[in-house]
Amino acid sequence: MISLTDTVAWGALQAHFPRVASEHLRDLFAGDPDRFERLSLRACGILLDYSKNRVTAETMDLLRALACESGVMERAHAMVSGVRINETEDRAVLHALLRDSRDSPVCKVDGALRAGVERTLEAMERFSEEVRSGRWRGHGGERITDVVNIGIGGSDLGPRMVCRALAPHADGPRVHFVSNIDGAHLTSTLRGLDPARTLFVVASKTFTTVETMTNAHAARRWLLDAAGDEAAVARHFVAASTNRAAVVGFGIAPEHMFEFEDWVGGRYSLWSAIGLPIAITVGMTQFRALLAGAHAMDRHFLEAPLDRNLPVTLALLGVWYVNFFGAETHAVLAYDQRLDRFAAHLQQLDMESNGKRVTLASTTVDYATGPVVWGEPGTGGQHAFFQLLHQGTRLVPADFIVAASCDHSLKDQHRLLVANCLAQTEALMLGRSEAEVRADLAAGGMPLGPSNRLASHRTFDGNRPTNTLMFERLDPFTLGALVALYEHKVFVQGAIWRVNSFDQWGVELGKELATSIARELANPDGVRPHDASTGGLVAEYRRLSG
Amino acid sequence: MISLTDTVAWGALQAHFPRVASEHLRDLFAGDPDRFERLSLRACGILLDYSKNRVTAETMDLLRALACESGVMERAHAMVSGVRINETEDRAVLHALLRDSRDSPVCKVDGALRAGVERTLEAMERFSEEVRSGRWRGHGGERITDVVNIGIGGSDLGPRMVCRALAPHADGPRVHFVSNIDGAHLTSTLRGLDPARTLFVVASKTFTTVETMTNAHAARRWLLDAAGDEAAVARHFVAASTNRAAVVGFGIAPEHMFEFEDWVGGRYSLWSAIGLPIAITVGMTQFRALLAGAHAMDRHFLEAPLDRNLPVTLALLGVWYVNFFGAETHAVLAYDQRLDRFAAHLQQLDMESNGKRVTLASTTVDYATGPVVWGEPGTGGQHAFFQLLHQGTRLVPADFIVAASCDHSLKDQHRLLVANCLAQTEALMLGRSEAEVRADLAAGGMPLGPSNRLASHRTFDGNRPTNTLMFERLDPFTLGALVALYEHKVFVQGAIWRVNSFDQWGVELGKELATSIARELANPDGVRPHDASTGGLVAEYRRLSG
Repeated sequence: MISLTDTVAWGALQAHFPRVASEHLRDLFAGDPDRFERLSLRACGILLDYSKNRVTAETMDLLRALACESGVMERAHAMVSGVRINETEDRAVLHALLRDSRDSPVCKVDGALRAGVERTLEAMERFSEEVRSGRWRGHGGERITDVVNIGIGGSDLGPRMVCRALAPHADGPRVHFVSNIDGAHLTSTLRGLDPARTLFVVASKTFTTVETMTNAHAARRWLLDAAGDEAAVARHFVAASTNRAAVVGFGIAPEHMFEFEDWVGGRYSLWSAIGLPIAITVGMTQFRALLAGAHAMDRHFLEAPLDRNLPVTLALLGVWYVNFFGAETHAVLAYDQRLDRFAAHLQQLDMESNGKRVTLASTTVDYATGPVVWGEPGTGGQHAFFQLLHQGTRLVPADFIVAASCDHSLKDQHRLLVANCLAQTEALMLGRSEAEVRADLAAGGMPLGPSNRLASHRTFDGNRPTNTLMFERLDPFTLGALVALYEHKVFVQGAIWRVNSFDQWGVELGKELATSIARELANPDGVRPHDASTGGLVAEYRRLSG
Repeated sequence: MISLTDTVAWGALQAHFPRVASEHLRDLFAGDPDRFERLSLRACGILLDYSKNRVTAETMDLLRALACESGVMERAHAMVSGVRINETEDRAVLHALLRDSRDSPVCKVDGALRAGVERTLEAMERFSEEVRSGRWRGHGGERITDVVNIGIGGSDLGPRMVCRALAPHADGPRVHFVSNIDGAHLTSTLRGLDPARTLFVVASKTFTTVETMTNAHAARRWLLDAAGDEAAVARHFVAASTNRAAVVGFGIAPEHMFEFEDWVGGRYSLWSAIGLPIAITVGMTQFRALLAGAHAMDRHFLEAPLDRNLPVTLALLGVWYVNFFGAETHAVLAYDQRLDRFAAHLQQLDMESNGKRVTLASTTVDYATGPVVWGEPGTGGQHAFFQLLHQGTRLVPADFIVAASCDHSLKDQHRLLVANCLAQTEALMLGRSEAEVRADLAAGGMPLGPSNRLASHRTFDGNRPTNTLMFERLDPFTLGALVALYEHKVFVQGAIWRVNSFDQWGVELGKELATSIARELANPDGVRPHDASTGGLVAEYRRLSG
């Protein structure tokens, strides 16, 4: 494939950029009363208003041309056809199959694959219903009141985010998540839980992930200290894994290993058996609604023309800011306390997928790739870091996400929440000129001297770009669509940047060195030579830990 | 004061930069076996290893010269002498006084101010002991089991972070934090709490913060729905505030308003009456240990020479990356699950302080100021965003924070945690060349073809800068010192960037617009004209919310 910077569209965008960069959004809105109508889209119940971005109609046309020249949609269709587009690991990429519909399928794959997905869903349904209904009993005959998911990365972030987001729908056991190798995570979670009523889900594809297996063995000891009988393990542990021998060796019954295939990447695994804690806490009907929302977005992504396509549009705007404005970050600001882990999930999804510098052609990029994704829920963030968004020296493109309706009874508060969300995008776009500030200060009776002093500090440049995603309600369907929207956004950006969004070689080196240092910390003999810093830190650890 | 880019040191740093930028840390370590000894510091029980930074001894000298030319320490001494260095708000900046020591004071201020601080501490001590001992009873005569802090920004992030970090020391009532105007935050927190046993701390300096007062009134209704008697308010609500009339109007007894002064900024307020929930949950002895740690760091900051000064060193390294390497972000990676809200606290501390573009001389900067601060605890982050740190196209300077010893019994897991922390900084620094990768692949028996294909994907450039902060244990003293370390780091950077780190005008415009939009959402008449986007979103909200 032609290199990104050699495409016709790239050159055209470079030529186009200075004209747009010098425009203020105020003027773009003033010059086009239909700008909102033109630059907003709807799909799967989600409105995307992207009119507060520093683009013109021409910018969008050029960006879409870049997507065409980059073969983005061809690659998308290859993905859902089961082509091994994860080339460096020689794997297909079929998370869309996990949520595909029998009636209106988007994946063009072997019936056996499809049947396997359905089998796992049925197994999840049977098991989650057993636990929810209380038919499943612990070793001592007690009902399960608490489920502890032990997993890390995709086996933690996705299900954890979803369980928090769908809390109003939770009518099953309480769910807890333990990920960190830091023993404080497991011990603080287990404090207050009753081993006789606790079920552990060990989520690790290979059943060898160091953090997960270490925590699982500690949890197993905690259970057995109370139960005193190895047979208890099979009543209190199940697995989401593919390593049957290791799962059985741990003491888990083979029928309670919930499987998924090698074409499910960790950061796309919440739709698979890794979603078991979601199914247990909200029930399989809601879990299937989550899948249906994601499927609706898959269909939209694959079928909508580029100029009506939500994931493509979000992706292209991101490319515009990263590669032309030089933005290094992207903020995700959900005005929804229940989405307090949404940014953390997207952080993995985006940064692990596109935080790469080598292309599929094995060349090193000469352009920037994935940004740092970060964010905290609004309105909390307004009282923390919004200062920098408004008056700092950096361009931080941001997505504002909000539901029009809420699931609780404090309706007035919800209206205030929405008002804040809208007001922030308005303020970031408009800004406030020094003349406006002076007029305000004068109207407030401020004498001329201090007014002069303060006016510049109260000035806002504005022209800060935002997207707004609004939907009726954060129900399972909408959440599924929202997460899939970002998955495809990341896919499109990866395709444009020519990287493999589905591998993660960047985590390997640290893992290897950790294994080696862990041995050295445990056994002072045979320490291999380190750089002076690492050696000094090993010595400091020894000194401090006695 | 001379403009930053006109200083002699700035020019010298510009000339010096290309030489350092072309060096690899591998070579800097190879060329100097004493690099760790030279480039590490200790204070207040904290080791700062900054040797894995892209600096030479000369870089540090030049950066320190920049600090001198910028009058950093003069400004620090002015701060603790009560000078109104927060010029745009005409206030002193005296959070150091909140933790000052009677025996070895660092603040040079009026005895009345000092006596006021001690009075508040004594009031906090009396009250927290009453609640902890059970002498304080609810309206129905029950003991308090749960404390709910209602506050936002600094009235939430600091105390919340500290309560999580000091959880092993918690022996008082459980503490909960509600900040978001989103009603889901309050309702989900109150679910499962017993009004008869719940105490609310309303934390708002002015007692007018919209989020806080809205949540406080909703909580008041929740209490009265159960208690049925207005007199209950005084037994279940206390305040950290300065607005006596409003506090009393709410129904809180005046003696249960815990005060702080206008020289305590929100992001520095956890040391003040805003820290009341900390005192209630861990006790005043631990709270005073937290203050003592911060005081020790204050003393170190004010007295240590620049080349032995931890906050100054961290700050200068940040300036180096922001202004010369063009880094836009700074990652805070605490290898400690109990510090899972540490980055969120620093986000406010740093971005609200230095996310500014106007100097104290009221001119607009022509250089970058504060970075985007972000992070999640290790080891979780390794399975999420570390891919980008290792192989992405961006330079992300990062602080790694770890305790050598833990407060739980899973000692082996703690050793693995430390090993991972050390291994990541080693990997980020060293990288792995294509030749090394090929040798590894060949040793693993990989045939030549695929090895060629994969080698570039498995290559790490390394040369990614990190700091490591190591201490014996995350006890209250160390936590206090650690937080104060970052406070002074931010102070130094603000002084170098010539901004007022103590105001936050950037939050005003959004607040004003939110008030106006909230009125419009509640009452469709009298909608003021908006840009097409904001107008379109208001209409969409109307449509969706019915």
